[in-house]
Amino acid sequence: MKTKPTETTIWQKLIRLAEKPYDLTAPGALSGSGRIGTMVCRSAGLRLLYAMQRVDEQVLTAFQELADGFDLVGRFQEMRGGAVLNRIDGWPSENRQVLHTASRDLFSENPLAPAATAQAKRELTQLERFIWEVDERHLLGSTGKPFTTMVNIGIGGSDLGPRAVNEALRAYYRPGRQVRFVANVDPDDASAVLASVDLSETLVTIVSKSGTTLETLTNEELARSAYRSGGLDPARHFLAVTGVGSPMEDPQRYLRSFAMFDYIGGRYSTTSMVGCVTLGFALGMEHLYAFLRGAAEMDEAAGHPAVRDNLPLLLALFGIWNRNFLGYPTLAILPYSQALHRFPAHLQQCDMESNGKSITRFGEPVSAATGPIVWGEPGTNGQHAFYQLLHQGTEIVPVEFIGFRENQYGQDLPVDGTSSQQKLIANLLAQAVALASGRDHDNPNRRFAGNRPSSIIVGNRLDPRTMGNLLALYEAKIVMQGFVWQINSFDQEGVQLGKQLATELLDLLKSGTNNGSTIGGELLREFEK
Amino acid sequence: MKTKPTETTIWQKLIRLAEKPYDLTAPGALSGSGRIGTMVCRSAGLRLLYAMQRVDEQVLTAFQELADGFDLVGRFQEMRGGAVLNRIDGWPSENRQVLHTASRDLFSENPLAPAATAQAKRELTQLERFIWEVDERHLLGSTGKPFTTMVNIGIGGSDLGPRAVNEALRAYYRPGRQVRFVANVDPDDASAVLASVDLSETLVTIVSKSGTTLETLTNEELARSAYRSGGLDPARHFLAVTGVGSPMEDPQRYLRSFAMFDYIGGRYSTTSMVGCVTLGFALGMEHLYAFLRGAAEMDEAAGHPAVRDNLPLLLALFGIWNRNFLGYPTLAILPYSQALHRFPAHLQQCDMESNGKSITRFGEPVSAATGPIVWGEPGTNGQHAFYQLLHQGTEIVPVEFIGFRENQYGQDLPVDGTSSQQKLIANLLAQAVALASGRDHDNPNRRFAGNRPSSIIVGNRLDPRTMGNLLALYEAKIVMQGFVWQINSFDQEGVQLGKQLATELLDLLKSGTNNGSTIGGELLREFEK
Repeated sequence: MKTKPTETTIWQKLIRLAEKPYDLTAPGALSGSGRIGTMVCRSAGLRLLYAMQRVDEQVLTAFQELADGFDLVGRFQEMRGGAVLNRIDGWPSENRQVLHTASRDLFSENPLAPAATAQAKRELTQLERFIWEVDERHLLGSTGKPFTTMVNIGIGGSDLGPRAVNEALRAYYRPGRQVRFVANVDPDDASAVLASVDLSETLVTIVSKSGTTLETLTNEELARSAYRSGGLDPARHFLAVTGVGSPMEDPQRYLRSFAMFDYIGGRYSTTSMVGCVTLGFALGMEHLYAFLRGAAEMDEAAGHPAVRDNLPLLLALFGIWNRNFLGYPTLAILPYSQALHRFPAHLQQCDMESNGKSITRFGEPVSAATGPIVWGEPGTNGQHAFYQLLHQGTEIVPVEFIGFRENQYGQDLPVDGTSSQQKLIANLLAQAVALASGRDHDNPNRRFAGNRPSSIIVGNRLDPRTMGNLLALYEAKIVMQGFVWQINSFDQEGVQLGKQLATELLDLLKSGTNNGSTIGGELLREFEK
Repeated sequence: MKTKPTETTIWQKLIRLAEKPYDLTAPGALSGSGRIGTMVCRSAGLRLLYAMQRVDEQVLTAFQELADGFDLVGRFQEMRGGAVLNRIDGWPSENRQVLHTASRDLFSENPLAPAATAQAKRELTQLERFIWEVDERHLLGSTGKPFTTMVNIGIGGSDLGPRAVNEALRAYYRPGRQVRFVANVDPDDASAVLASVDLSETLVTIVSKSGTTLETLTNEELARSAYRSGGLDPARHFLAVTGVGSPMEDPQRYLRSFAMFDYIGGRYSTTSMVGCVTLGFALGMEHLYAFLRGAAEMDEAAGHPAVRDNLPLLLALFGIWNRNFLGYPTLAILPYSQALHRFPAHLQQCDMESNGKSITRFGEPVSAATGPIVWGEPGTNGQHAFYQLLHQGTEIVPVEFIGFRENQYGQDLPVDGTSSQQKLIANLLAQAVALASGRDHDNPNRRFAGNRPSSIIVGNRLDPRTMGNLLALYEAKIVMQGFVWQINSFDQEGVQLGKQLATELLDLLKSGTNNGSTIGGELLREFEK
């Protein structure tokens, strides 16, 4: 379909429906009608409560028409089967398959992309063997100590996803295991982390698909230097996770290497070796497989043709509705779980790098606004911070809440008649109601306009499987939105210019002759004053 | 002045100027003209490079006219002197002074609000004495161990600011001292932190102005219970930071109490005892005073009448220009310093809770858009994440970069001919240039439209004094923007409705009879299914 989305009949229909969206503040709009109990979608281990979105039956029917007309599920299945979706028709582009889903399609007898899944299985087998050797102390540090700690050095996709999932599942870590992360080229980042661990018990995992990432190679050198200063042999502590044929493929320098494949983009790589090495080390293989199974379940669920029974698709369409038809430029993701404190940062990357685009996959300017600005912090913390603006600001912010019925540690205490977990849930739900319903008041400063839309994603408990569900839910949501906008959600040409200009500035710094009048050169002189 | 801002002549003039804002992509727009070297503002220890904003001399002159017409500096000085600015004329409101500036106005012979500064000094003297007793081991834990660790339990303003500044200054911590933070009512937050420290060597600081904050009291109970289970006496480990007359004023339960005053709002309280207790414990008093001095210097600088010589004022006006005249709904704050990784979260609170308002201080609906959505992550990390959208998305995001000429730890290593610190700076500057200048290209997917505005805040090194500069810079900026919008930047009525609805839900949970058809009740039943 090369017709612009905005020129389709269904797009025009949605514009008309959005002229008078469902009024959540009207009497009886939310309660007493069965709306709350009806507007629920379940996929894999998660449910979506969406009564607080500004939609009615007509809009949901139009969603189905949009999904069918744009063949969103069909394209998703083509992706899973290995279609070359990372491309711009008629222009030089990466021209690659998009097969992050294959890295967890391990549990079916007929994986959709058998070759890629076979490669994933080989790497997992190698990882399992490696972790067994570490656990059994066949592999020891260069002074003979068993490994307790892993430092992950990577940036962007090689950092945010693995970090978010490790943080989320810390309650499931094996006793005595810890993982730390270094990303920033700021040398203080590596200094602080390296100073906080016992290097002689530490594995350092270097993650870079190209094997040429400036930040990662620089931090690797800092880390190797720290090992050498401590009289330790880096080659017995360092692991590589890198692309086939990358300059990092060097058995002399690494204890082990694990492969990344060009059909998995960085921001979608958490279920590949990029995430699996730290997670396997910290959680053990059983929990790692539960996590991968959770992701696979959600991929499978995203293939359901009915919008109302397909959580990723429905979440994608609420995003389209709020962005393109109600006109809201941002999306807040607010998990009511401290363990998910870095999950919004991962989704910020995954969403904004995928869908922050202005050119369609046909090389033409987009005809509608694309990816929103995605941001968020955990609740209840945010309630005491930026929620003021969510309730009474002049900018309307759609919200995706995430909550769980049970906590992770099982440590809780009734205070004033309720447990902490009950307080957490009560607060989450109260916020959704307050945003939607608003409240009138004599004092104008105590009025709440309401009609601020939200969804609630509910899981039973944040365990490895549920985390897999959540990760794959958002990956699928983002991809499906890209299909609607007709963009390539898998490249990142927008980061190239900055890289190129940084290289030019570094050349100036190296040569020590910054006298010219390039913009960067002038700015550098001013900065250094 | 009760005239609406939008009805003033200067507002209308700015609307006309914004019809054709300065084109940063035109040939010679940035280099060769001296623009970069001229468009620099210095206040206290910081400089602002603002050549990459879409302004020219006419706009800057109009800024001065706006600042004078709205008496922004005059009102700021009135605030510092104790004016009752936390109020809504003609309606019930908090009716309080706004005197966070007094908590650091310690270095002048004539403080602007002498009574409040005297109170701050008394608390600091008490803190100094306490820290001396801890250092000299006159005070020991209940099993006789010296204190090495402090856990701060607070939320919102009692958490984000102190946490951001502690993280920023970790390089200056005294050897053997550490501070951890618990905020979330999610019981996993406290469980994880309490399990990671040796309680017998730990002080627990409970921070709540009202002494009734749900999350904080709940976490206090969890922590006290952990102490009792470990055979330790909480009364010998727990400190209180609370308002005069709060229910937490109880010497039986706390080793020491420090006072908060009602004229300092939570999100502005980092330089009061709310931040000083953890910072004094970790940094020592000398560094703490350097931090307070840095903040006082910037408050002083914010009193300068000339826009071009007043960094907080200028930063405030770029925000107004981008929000109200160029129409951008968000602001990204991107520190090129890993130590500032939580500073954007603090500013998100301070800005959005202050200025996310729809009612003026006269109780009327605002006539222009107020506070933007503030978000951000450290660079260079973000470059590998969401910068794609900054460069090529359909939404334009103004950026405030923060960078330092030197790093904190002094540990660096030349790799490929440049140090990490040089790489960090080169990347920061390259991003600003790329956003502003853009680039044409045959391949439409490699085009950059440019004209995406940014400022660069430059400091020498992120030390305690510079951190004080930065904190006070943003506090003053936010307050001055509130003056332009004619709102009360010091209340937070928008958080009340959610609190009230949460209490109702908790009552339902306590009674165990959730059968009715309130919206919250129905939602709770659905959530629990």
